[in-house]
Amino acid sequence: MEPYIYRHRVRYRECDPMGVAYHAHYLDWFEAARTEMVRTLGLPYRQLEALGIFMPVVAATVRYHRPAYYDDLLEIHVRIPEPPRARIRFAYLVFREGETEALASGEVVLCFLDRNRLRPIPAPEIVRQLWAHYATDPR
Amino acid sequence: MEPYIYRHRVRYRECDPMGVAYHAHYLDWFEAARTEMVRTLGLPYRQLEALGIFMPVVAATVRYHRPAYYDDLLEIHVRIPEPPRARIRFAYLVFREGETEALASGEVVLCFLDRNRLRPIPAPEIVRQLWAHYATDPR
Amino acid sequence: MEPYIYRHRVRYRECDPMGVAYHAHYLDWFEAARTEMVRTLGLPYRQLEALGIFMPVVAATVRYHRPAYYDDLLEIHVRIPEPPRARIRFAYLVFREGETEALASGEVVLCFLDRNRLRPIPAPEIVRQLWAHYATDPR
Amino acid sequence: MEPYIYRHRVRYRECDPMGVAYHAHYLDWFEAARTEMVRTLGLPYRQLEALGIFMPVVAATVRYHRPAYYDDLLEIHVRIPEPPRARIRFAYLVFREGETEALASGEVVLCFLDRNRLRPIPAPEIVRQLWAHYATDPR
Repeated sequence: MEPYIYRHRVRYRECDPMGVAYHAHYLDWFEAARTEMVRTLGLPYRQLEALGIFMPVVAATVRYHRPAYYDDLLEIHVRIPEPPRARIRFAYLVFREGETEALASGEVVLCFLDRNRLRPIPAPEIVRQLWAHYATDPR
Repeated sequence: MEPYIYRHRVRYRECDPMGVAYHAHYLDWFEAARTEMVRTLGLPYRQLEALGIFMPVVAATVRYHRPAYYDDLLEIHVRIPEPPRARIRFAYLVFREGETEALASGEVVLCFLDRNRLRPIPAPEIVRQLWAHYATDPR
Repeated sequence: MEPYIYRHRVRYRECDPMGVAYHAHYLDWFEAARTEMVRTLGLPYRQLEALGIFMPVVAATVRYHRPAYYDDLLEIHVRIPEPPRARIRFAYLVFREGETEALASGEVVLCFLDRNRLRPIPAPEIVRQLWAHYATDPR
Repeated sequence: MEPYIYRHRVRYRECDPMGVAYHAHYLDWFEAARTEMVRTLGLPYRQLEALGIFMPVVAATVRYHRPAYYDDLLEIHVRIPEPPRARIRFAYLVFREGETEALASGEVVLCFLDRNRLRPIPAPEIVRQLWAHYATDPR
C-alpha cells in the first residue's frame, strides 16, 4: 500500500552547529507525520483520546544515512506495515524533496492504554477498522 | 534580596548554525531556574499542582545582549522582585560562569488558576508565605 | 499593510501536562512564520546567510491571553511595522482558526551581523528593498 | 566497567498531556549524558570539534518500558561497550532515582567525520586512547 507523505521544512531552531538537522527532531517529524496520516484516514488522534484511548510510544529507532540541511523541504513517508494488534508500528522514510535516496529511515511502535492509562489493551476496534480501510484504499 | 542561581551547561541540541544558543531555549532555562528556586524555598511546583493550583505563563520577555556558546556553563540568576498578588513575576539575568556582564536578561510572569484551570485566582496563601520567607531569609 | 499568515497545527510534543501549548514554543512558531513571510517576499533567509548576512534575535516578547490546545490549527499573523534600520522588528498575533480574538501577541527584534558575525551592521540594502516592496505590495 | 551516571530532573516543558516525559526527549538526555561522561574522561566534545573531529549520530534506538513523570529525578547510565572503530556506540539505561528497574533503555551510534565534515574517518587516536583509559579505569 502507498505511504502517506508529510512535508516539513527544516527550521533554524532544528539545526545544530554542524549546520544540519539535529537527530532528535526526526522523532518530532515522525509524530507530525503519523498524526496527519491518521487524520486523513478519518480519525484524528485527539478524538481517540476523547474516547479514552491513549497511545504511548514503546519503541523508536532512527537510522541517519545523510544529513538534512537548514531550509530543506523534506518528505516524510509513513506506512503502517502490519495490522495493529497489541501494538501498532509506523515505518518511516525521510527524503529531501525531489530526491530518491532516503536521508533517514525509522520506525515508531505505540501501544494502547485504557482510560486510566494504567493497563495496556489490544488495538481498539476503531483502530483496526482504520487499518483495514488503509490497507485496501490507501487514499 | 539575593537571587537564586541555577547552573546550566549549553547543549549541542540547543545551538544553531551560528554556533550559539538558540534564543527560544532561554525560556526553557528560566523554567528550570524558577522550579529549582521554588523547591529550595520548600515548595516543589509539583506539590502546588497536587493542591489544585496551576500557574500558566501570561507574559515572557528576553533581551539578548551577547551570545552563549556550545558547552558554556551558564549561571541563571532568578529573583521574585515583588510579593505575588494576582500574578507572580520572576526576573532573570544570565551570565557565563565567571563573567560579570550579563549575556541576557528577562522576565516571566505567571498567574494562578483554580483546580479546573478556568478561573484566575489571587496568589494562594501558601505562595505568599513562600515569598515572605524568601524576602526575609533568601535561601 | 496586510499581515502574512502562517498556519501551524499544535503538536502533542508541544503540549504540557495542563494540556495546552507550552509557552516557549510560540517563539518557534514565530521563527517559522517570519521565515515563510520573508520567502514570499522573494528572499529566503538561507540566501541571506549565503550572502554573509546573519540576523540574531536581540529581543523577544510574548503575551499569552488564552491557551492553545493540542491539535488546534493556529494562524500566526506576522507584520514588519517599520522599515528596518539597525534592527528589524516582527510583530505577531496568534489566532485559533476561525476566531477573531487573539490567543497571544508578541514581537521579535533582530539585528544584522557581518560575515564574521562579530560586528553589527545597518540593515543591508537587499533587506530594505524587501521591506519597501512589502510596504507597497504586501504579497 | 562501570557506567557513568548523569542526573536529570524532568522538566514541565518535557512532559506531554499524558503527564509523562515525551519520548523524543530521551535522546536529548542521552546527548547530555555522553557529553558529561566524555568530559570526565578528560576530553570535552567541544575540544574534539576544535581539533577538526565531528561526530554525527548515525543511529539511535530507545525502548520505553515505563513512564517518567514531571519532576522525577532520573539517573541516566551510559557505557561504551566496545572499543570505537569506524563507529562508537553508547548504551543507556534510564532509572528513576532509587529504583532498580529501568524506565527505558537505548543506544546511540556515532561516526567520525574529518574537518570538512564530508568523509567518514576511523576513530581518531585520541578517542581510542580515551576508551582504553575508560575500559581500565572508569572514572
